[in-house]
Amino acid sequence: MKYLEPLSRQVRLSDGAIPEADAVQERRLSDLAGLFADEAAESELIASNPLVYRVYDAAALPKEDGQLLFSTTVIQSGRVGDEFFMTKGHYHARADRAELYYGLSGQGILLLQTPEGRFEALEMVPGTAAYVPPYWGHRTMNTGEEPFVFLAAYPADAGYDYGTIARDGFAALVLAGADGPRVVANPSFVPTARAPKG
Amino acid sequence: MKYLEPLSRQVRLSDGAIPEADAVQERRLSDLAGLFADEAAESELIASNPLVYRVYDAAALPKEDGQLLFSTTVIQSGRVGDEFFMTKGHYHARADRAELYYGLSGQGILLLQTPEGRFEALEMVPGTAAYVPPYWGHRTMNTGEEPFVFLAAYPADAGYDYGTIARDGFAALVLAGADGPRVVANPSFVPTARAPKG
Repeated sequence: MKYLEPLSRQVRLSDGAIPEADAVQERRLSDLAGLFADEAAESELIASNPLVYRVYDAAALPKEDGQLLFSTTVIQSGRVGDEFFMTKGHYHARADRAELYYGLSGQGILLLQTPEGRFEALEMVPGTAAYVPPYWGHRTMNTGEEPFVFLAAYPADAGYDYGTIARDGFAALVLAGADGPRVVANPSFVPTARAPKG
Repeated sequence: MKYLEPLSRQVRLSDGAIPEADAVQERRLSDLAGLFADEAAESELIASNPLVYRVYDAAALPKEDGQLLFSTTVIQSGRVGDEFFMTKGHYHARADRAELYYGLSGQGILLLQTPEGRFEALEMVPGTAAYVPPYWGHRTMNTGEEPFVFLAAYPADAGYDYGTIARDGFAALVLAGADGPRVVANPSFVPTARAPKG
């Protein structure tokens, strides 16, 4: 029997980075082109192409059933028009896989949607453990003034489906308002209503 | 399609409790009788039967492949003889299931063993993400002066095998020493050397 070796990764509490990460994905605004509702604001801001978020993939582990992958995500504070800086959002390629988020610093929202377009928003602050059930697409946004940092753990065989959200959009937008973030239906969302694979 | 609903649980950062937990498991020393190496010290301390740890099971979710369960564990500071307060320790009933721990406060050690008796010790402080690979038995202990609190996430179908460690013991002991915690081989450990299921 060949065993995988135990391992640990230290999250740098000052900024959420994992210095020993296996990989770091950096997403600038140009990587999210077309995802924000305010196209004019997006075009204008792409000129300076700010960093939107980084994902620190902690460790290279087998992408097998029973394994867990884990990462931290650091979303910068910022807006495109009234819309908060956010992740691309995805479904899992194996759509029956859940995911767990845990808020480390800053504040944000975990936005979820079913393929039919029902959406839910969960507020996240440090200490919030937020559960993404199977089949829900999910995206996070920073609604605060500081970087929003969270830990994620998910089945290693979950995989990513970014294409559906890139094509159809997300059922809700999270916009800055005078009384705090507002979650509103996205008028240009096309319900995917794909049959979930199980 | 019936979807599970998204949910969140707030971890109380002051003490690691989850006030909305689905279940709380409380383990006093009498629940761990026979697990500590110093039998005389254990017998003496059982008279006052101190709290050793609590586990806050965050949410009742289906125990199905693809789902994740999550919890916090709060281990009190204390010793039985020279041995630090610790959890019972377990293998997963589905031994090919991994687990992720994330240190929230205090300090401790994640001790792991293979059924053949090889052991590893990972130090945990706030911000340490520690990975339990499939097939490794695992136990945690508080090596500090404050409660040791960590978050755990694991596949919902992993299940628990407490019996093997209750019967055979753990391959290593973590003892208090003048220069800090010492991880030493347990002379009374019986290697289980069971064939891992998977």
